[in-house]
Amino acid sequence: MMDKILDSRDMNFLLYEFLDTELLINRLRYAGHSREIFNATLESVELVAKKYFANHYSKGDANEPSFDGMNVKQIPETKMAWDAVSDLGIMSAHQDFDEGGMQLPYVICASANAYLSAANASTAGYHFLTIAACNVIRSFANDEQKSLFVPPMMDGRFAGTMALTEPNQGSALADIKTVAYPHDDGSFRIKGQKMFITNGDHSLSDNIVHLVLAKIKDAPAGVNGISLFIVPKIKLKADGSLGEANDVALAGLLHKMGYRNATSTVLNFGEKEGAEGYLIGKPHRGLHYMFQMMNEARIGVGTGAAALAYQGYLHSLAYARERPQGRLPADKSPNSKQVNIIEHADVRRMLLTQKAYAEGAMALCLYATSLMEDERTADTECERQRAAVLLDLLTPVVKSWPSKYGCLSNDLAIQVLGGSGYIREYPLEQLYRDQRLNPIHEGAEGIQGLDLLGRKIPMQNQYGFDIFMQEVRITLQRASLIDELAELFDPIHEALERLDTVTAILTRKVEKEPNSGLANATVYLDMFGRVVMAWIWLRQALVAYHALNKGEAVIDASERDFYQGKLQAARFYIQWELPATVQQSLLLEENNLVCFEMQDGWF
Amino acid sequence: MMDKILDSRDMNFLLYEFLDTELLINRLRYAGHSREIFNATLESVELVAKKYFANHYSKGDANEPSFDGMNVKQIPETKMAWDAVSDLGIMSAHQDFDEGGMQLPYVICASANAYLSAANASTAGYHFLTIAACNVIRSFANDEQKSLFVPPMMDGRFAGTMALTEPNQGSALADIKTVAYPHDDGSFRIKGQKMFITNGDHSLSDNIVHLVLAKIKDAPAGVNGISLFIVPKIKLKADGSLGEANDVALAGLLHKMGYRNATSTVLNFGEKEGAEGYLIGKPHRGLHYMFQMMNEARIGVGTGAAALAYQGYLHSLAYARERPQGRLPADKSPNSKQVNIIEHADVRRMLLTQKAYAEGAMALCLYATSLMEDERTADTECERQRAAVLLDLLTPVVKSWPSKYGCLSNDLAIQVLGGSGYIREYPLEQLYRDQRLNPIHEGAEGIQGLDLLGRKIPMQNQYGFDIFMQEVRITLQRASLIDELAELFDPIHEALERLDTVTAILTRKVEKEPNSGLANATVYLDMFGRVVMAWIWLRQALVAYHALNKGEAVIDASERDFYQGKLQAARFYIQWELPATVQQSLLLEENNLVCFEMQDGWF
Repeated sequence: MMDKILDSRDMNFLLYEFLDTELLINRLRYAGHSREIFNATLESVELVAKKYFANHYSKGDANEPSFDGMNVKQIPETKMAWDAVSDLGIMSAHQDFDEGGMQLPYVICASANAYLSAANASTAGYHFLTIAACNVIRSFANDEQKSLFVPPMMDGRFAGTMALTEPNQGSALADIKTVAYPHDDGSFRIKGQKMFITNGDHSLSDNIVHLVLAKIKDAPAGVNGISLFIVPKIKLKADGSLGEANDVALAGLLHKMGYRNATSTVLNFGEKEGAEGYLIGKPHRGLHYMFQMMNEARIGVGTGAAALAYQGYLHSLAYARERPQGRLPADKSPNSKQVNIIEHADVRRMLLTQKAYAEGAMALCLYATSLMEDERTADTECERQRAAVLLDLLTPVVKSWPSKYGCLSNDLAIQVLGGSGYIREYPLEQLYRDQRLNPIHEGAEGIQGLDLLGRKIPMQNQYGFDIFMQEVRITLQRASLIDELAELFDPIHEALERLDTVTAILTRKVEKEPNSGLANATVYLDMFGRVVMAWIWLRQALVAYHALNKGEAVIDASERDFYQGKLQAARFYIQWELPATVQQSLLLEENNLVCFEMQDGWF
Repeated sequence: MMDKILDSRDMNFLLYEFLDTELLINRLRYAGHSREIFNATLESVELVAKKYFANHYSKGDANEPSFDGMNVKQIPETKMAWDAVSDLGIMSAHQDFDEGGMQLPYVICASANAYLSAANASTAGYHFLTIAACNVIRSFANDEQKSLFVPPMMDGRFAGTMALTEPNQGSALADIKTVAYPHDDGSFRIKGQKMFITNGDHSLSDNIVHLVLAKIKDAPAGVNGISLFIVPKIKLKADGSLGEANDVALAGLLHKMGYRNATSTVLNFGEKEGAEGYLIGKPHRGLHYMFQMMNEARIGVGTGAAALAYQGYLHSLAYARERPQGRLPADKSPNSKQVNIIEHADVRRMLLTQKAYAEGAMALCLYATSLMEDERTADTECERQRAAVLLDLLTPVVKSWPSKYGCLSNDLAIQVLGGSGYIREYPLEQLYRDQRLNPIHEGAEGIQGLDLLGRKIPMQNQYGFDIFMQEVRITLQRASLIDELAELFDPIHEALERLDTVTAILTRKVEKEPNSGLANATVYLDMFGRVVMAWIWLRQALVAYHALNKGEAVIDASERDFYQGKLQAARFYIQWELPATVQQSLLLEENNLVCFEMQDGWF
């Protein structure tokens, strides 16, 4: 069976040819690093991914965590994977050297995470959430809180969660009901129930640090009354050692379709005296702090979705190359040899579509991560701001596009295998089930559409959107110099103008009449995503074109094939997937309200 | 929780308003029947579906059949469901009175099956396959074979299977390796392995009758060397009573993503002396006979897919009506009451899309079943032939459209529920897993595309396609008389012309160069399907329009709502889904070969 985690040639392409990761070593923060160190890091992560994550991908699905009323039981491989990652230091890879970290660029950390996700997404989630929670504490908590919680979260003694959702509120954070009661010693007592809390309980670490959104008693209604608290499962003594159990109870596990080796929990805070919690930063600013975590988590979801799509693609590709079946239509002889199914046009379509989705999604997410990097370490304030604004704009697309098309990609992977794709004897059906979580968590598809059209486009007088348009036009300008890329240039050029027109029309509508103006925000999100991805593919095609045109002598046959594949995938995306924007723009321009005007009683 | 199986008001609409089912009683075969009898039949099936099928939908998934090396163990509810259906007489509902049947029209039987599928598709499959196998024996076997096997298959003592697929051949039946050795007594000894045989072993019936495709020793290569055999699990004595076990062994169960309460088996025929088998009809004509079964099974798959989509739609609709969350965009006050999520535009989009897919798929499948009826019982030979040819043309669409869009529909049902849609505490994720089988079995999507463009379109000088065009034009003609339906008329009119042009171009290409001409057959299948479905929705819209325009006095408010819903779903389908044919036709007209020209080495 196929044992690749990701395609390392392509990861190399994305990091060093599509992106300029090697140039990062010119920045002060990365001065001690080199491409060799980056690659050595990824190679060791790949080994860990194979040895400690891929090894129990299927087993963790068939033997999901269970709760006996006292403890959560898990297969032992999960704990071994947790320890292996902790030992590797990847939990703190991005932190500064003087914090005990490896001071690696985000894009290397994200690539490392992609290997772990591709090998076993649900097991990898334990440390992703811990890193994310730890980052919030590092950014916003006070020194005492940091000194108590950050070191054990960086070395894997403590795990972390984000506890936002409640049973009756879902996507609408304004309506959370969990209350924090001030206590004499300056801490708080938290009471309330949280639901769908990923990794809310498990047996991997000595302690679990919940970041809990709650409203301090008598706080203002809505999102401006939400505060953020550290609520450990086990309280700490002043010296940081473990004390008594906090008043946090696991009410039960939820049983997911996929992602089964991660626990999904219902947690009761404060069933007895109230769970001891420590306010992070200022009262009522909780959502603001949490958004840092959510934005990073959204890019993380996109990257994880890209990784699952990539695994499915590689599996179905390997299968299609080995599985003989049938003959080409023109061959009517029953005595001729069967061809491998990769020879069938429709199988090629399914593989090429997956390639365009999986490699495209990975390119998009690593690009977004490079913006996260630039936001923090680019040389000038202007570059940093530009990157921050562009990333802010693109985040809904980075979260939702890989999730949506990742599902379609894993669907095609099943279809390539046919009946074998549908049975648990092969990994494709599990990838499909795992992937289906991604369009739901960290803000469902519909929320991302509203975020893009309702908030991100209009922000700062469309500054983000203007930057995006400029970036695409710069790429188009470069492509326009190359006659061979005209077939890619024209459709994107036209689609960009369409997007510009539609955006102008819709933003005016949203201002005047938000309900109907935002009614088709999900269609807008998809249209926007198609333009973004066409651009991402054009950028890859440009690199491939230039690599191919260095002359035969410079690159060998397999390298030529690699770049030809990139060009063909770009052609596919731009000729097969981008044109849907034509009809989408017509729907959006007229603001078609067929769905909006549908009445409850008519269903 | 929602406990509807299907929407009986809509089923009524489809049977008696969209189709003319009541007029069937004017045909001699149905002279003794009435609408009341039809409805009473469906009501009793609905009760059985609720009591004996819906009751273990989740349990059968969580406790799938297991094999201990000797017997297949199943939850007892499966056997109770099997018996309940046998007792009801639905297994033989279509058969003539003098065969012991109920002599009911196909469309009533198909509706009955839809109720069972919607309640529990995998349990329902046991009797669907039995009926299908029994029909082949009735049509093509000799009298002795019929007298031995038909009665016990009609009353549920014997079950049936279709054993086509082998481990190394999949969709390419020409390459099956199972051999039938002639035996002195006129029977055959079958040797070979079959895989993915649904319900190939179980403990519901006294015997299992396998219809096995095999090649008689020294038969011609390819599909013209395939014969069809009856191979019972337990051999029969001359009087029809059970004799010794045949040489048919269950090698193992396959473990599916969904449809788990149906067994999927690997069967070894003839590991010892050879499995005793009885030739059906003439040697080497097996595939011809099997095609009757496959064509019926394909319509059955479509109907089952429609039923699963329908269940998901009804569940998510009920949830959306009850679940409060968030506020409309224009309402910025955190103190206002939360709205039920059906108020959110994007949720309405997801519900309306499901309505268009689920109700549309059901309408398509019942329409196809009415053609099956007309093929057999229409008054004139001309009508019968016309129906046969049209059904033949449409079968790939009837199989694949509900399967493909059923998956998308169940995907949306999950999305409406968000996190709750993803957990096994709700039925949506199971419906999604169950549905995913449908684009695979009975001829995968790609096979249906090749069948449509490569065989069905060109057959009899495009006679089928011409009839289809005529039918759509007749409906358009009727719609053109109604000004209010102009918004539906124009897009279909244009799409039909596009389809005509594309079809002419492609059929010429296929003739000249089959490999590249058929390369985009799956895109053609989807384009064709969209036109078919737009027509199906226009026909529903016409009925709804006329019902609404009888005047207020005639229909009450809930009836008005029902018809308004039909009109709105038609608008949705025609304005949101049909326009994709514009870009599809451009791809097809230029015969875009980006996928076809992709090279193995470029992946």
